[in-house]
Amino acid sequence: MLTPDHLDTNSLFLTERLNDAGFEVHLKTVVGDNEDEIAGVLRGALQRSKLVIFSGGLGPTEDDLTRTAVAKVLHRTISLDPSLLEALRQRFASRGYNMPKINERQAEVIHGAEILQNAFGTAPGMWMEENGVHLALLPGPPRELRAMFDAAVLPRVLSLGRGRTLAKRVFHVTGMTESEVDSHVAPIYKAYPRVQTTVLASTGHIALRLNRWLELGEDPKDLDELASKIREALGDAIFTDSGESLELVVGRQLCESGRTLAVAESCTSGMIGMRITRVPGSSDYFLGGILCYSNEVKMSLCGVPEKVLREHGAVSAEVAEALARGVRNSLKSSVGLSATGIAGPGGGSAEKPVGLVFVGLSDGERTAHWRRIIPGDRETIRERATYFALSLLRRFLLHHRDAENVNK
Amino acid sequence: MLTPDHLDTNSLFLTERLNDAGFEVHLKTVVGDNEDEIAGVLRGALQRSKLVIFSGGLGPTEDDLTRTAVAKVLHRTISLDPSLLEALRQRFASRGYNMPKINERQAEVIHGAEILQNAFGTAPGMWMEENGVHLALLPGPPRELRAMFDAAVLPRVLSLGRGRTLAKRVFHVTGMTESEVDSHVAPIYKAYPRVQTTVLASTGHIALRLNRWLELGEDPKDLDELASKIREALGDAIFTDSGESLELVVGRQLCESGRTLAVAESCTSGMIGMRITRVPGSSDYFLGGILCYSNEVKMSLCGVPEKVLREHGAVSAEVAEALARGVRNSLKSSVGLSATGIAGPGGGSAEKPVGLVFVGLSDGERTAHWRRIIPGDRETIRERATYFALSLLRRFLLHHRDAENVNK
Repeated sequence: MLTPDHLDTNSLFLTERLNDAGFEVHLKTVVGDNEDEIAGVLRGALQRSKLVIFSGGLGPTEDDLTRTAVAKVLHRTISLDPSLLEALRQRFASRGYNMPKINERQAEVIHGAEILQNAFGTAPGMWMEENGVHLALLPGPPRELRAMFDAAVLPRVLSLGRGRTLAKRVFHVTGMTESEVDSHVAPIYKAYPRVQTTVLASTGHIALRLNRWLELGEDPKDLDELASKIREALGDAIFTDSGESLELVVGRQLCESGRTLAVAESCTSGMIGMRITRVPGSSDYFLGGILCYSNEVKMSLCGVPEKVLREHGAVSAEVAEALARGVRNSLKSSVGLSATGIAGPGGGSAEKPVGLVFVGLSDGERTAHWRRIIPGDRETIRERATYFALSLLRRFLLHHRDAENVNK
Repeated sequence: MLTPDHLDTNSLFLTERLNDAGFEVHLKTVVGDNEDEIAGVLRGALQRSKLVIFSGGLGPTEDDLTRTAVAKVLHRTISLDPSLLEALRQRFASRGYNMPKINERQAEVIHGAEILQNAFGTAPGMWMEENGVHLALLPGPPRELRAMFDAAVLPRVLSLGRGRTLAKRVFHVTGMTESEVDSHVAPIYKAYPRVQTTVLASTGHIALRLNRWLELGEDPKDLDELASKIREALGDAIFTDSGESLELVVGRQLCESGRTLAVAESCTSGMIGMRITRVPGSSDYFLGGILCYSNEVKMSLCGVPEKVLREHGAVSAEVAEALARGVRNSLKSSVGLSATGIAGPGGGSAEKPVGLVFVGLSDGERTAHWRRIIPGDRETIRERATYFALSLLRRFLLHHRDAENVNK
């Protein structure tokens, strides 16, 4: 974890679980496979914390030093646990292997520690207490750590009874910038100082998070009040309040209205199709699409007239609309969605700069296009163009539904 | 950075740069916006380190506490720098804004610190020394941190003259598992104990890294020797020794042989096209493709006979080959590449389990298919199927080239 290649994801998982259990995380340290340095970190943590969680360093090899470093700081002995050793042997035997001698180390237990079962690996975890501070030693591989935390650590953490819980509301918004969202809602959330409100831009959408620590028995009344005011202020710019992805929301819209979708992708070249089919069951409403990267494919498979391409260029409102209409006809879908743009770094001009993107939509009755200039590098432009397209598709389907309801 | 949502990427960037400059990173700490806790972390670091780098907490608001925490630990005063204040005012003025009063804090400088210019933001950085330990205070936003580190910190770090450098070789391999690679090369690299060799699996490929710390004036002779033995042992399973992506390597193969490509994607539904077009200039050899998610599209646009679909099912060797041939014909490309599979979580059977993937390739003369069962969840299966397809395309083009050379 001290190399340039390893992102720390375990601590994000642990933070989320701990917050839910009423613990705030105050400090995270990444330390190398060095017994003295691990010991130094633990000494600092014991002075500061109610709960210390280690991840990693429980393997069988010489650079797995968490056990010995912890035992040293706590002045405890380490001994071989015969039943653990037997369980390890059986684990290997059940797969047809003899246990390597080196793995015996994984049956070593710090005096006074409870053993935590590892459902997915050979390294058992440990749970112990020292002067009112609780320690958990967990394996490093995320799958092993997560399963062990949920099964064995979380119940123990909850029984420590912090008495507090973190109540959360999250809104995901499209079609507005971070500062537009903030200027809409800041006057509202400023009246609720006990709720921590953050507005954070991700690629293509904005997350608005409300966090409120609740003491035992306290009601999240102010949080609910604030959430409902924010819902009112942002209206249908909010596409989910339960963390759903935009493609899942769009998929449900298509599903519920009995519509099918086809896409014609030029600059995004597969990104829209890829996102839509992330959702299991998307074959119910997604028929497929055409990656019309070359002009020949725009003409031959998407039916864009050569004249339109010549007169307006491949990146134009006219071509975006022709692509949406064309792919809808070609794949016989209810709705056709298209994207064409200049992802860069080359190919831009004063009139049509890098980042210029047109999205087209057609449902047979209506055909429309939208234009945007997206800043950033090639991948950012493509990702945000994809989000832009999905977000327009959502609005298109939303207003269609409204129109239908009016007609009834 | 103590929330469940923020991955720490700054420290990875800094680690890479510091390693290159001859510094090993021993400890990373993530601490909240709390002056005492920041001060505590610094006190520990001063006892341990030659170089301490802070990122973040240099903004204008009340929770930006790095400046005051550092000044406190070092017993130094903080004062307003008039020229910095003027520069900040001008920065705002040049964009047509009056500088908010709150931003004056960003002109505050710790006594004795050198100011580091921020090319992309308002927070200046600082560089100072305390009893032989060097400190850098950098802004948190990655773009600002990176630019400032490269422009102002790196030259200073290099002048500290550790005298060591890290020599590196990296090989990226496809078509072999992590343990296959390791069993091939372990007997070789074990004879070079001064070179740190790691074999790491990413999605769809294996990275084999050789690191060797060099003292001043030392030659990386053993590293070069090991690298050349590894190159020989792995042969053309290595697709790059310079960190190039597989799609870039494949793109160059297509370009150099004057071939064009079209793809027919079912289970990957855009991922292959998206990867190929990540490469700027890919329009030179990539014509486009068909997302043949539904069987209707497999028939109507890719020319798969209904009989073949009915007799063998959409996920079959026959359909993979028919798709490769069909998309090549339909888009008039030199090579057609296809992928069809069961990404799950539903849709699997005993005969055709979730994870079963067929890749087809056709160049008019030869049509071939490959079969693999990929473990993992829906997204992993799709990503690895994409890598599998690109890796087969590379081999296909490689052997074609060999064949041409033989014929000459």
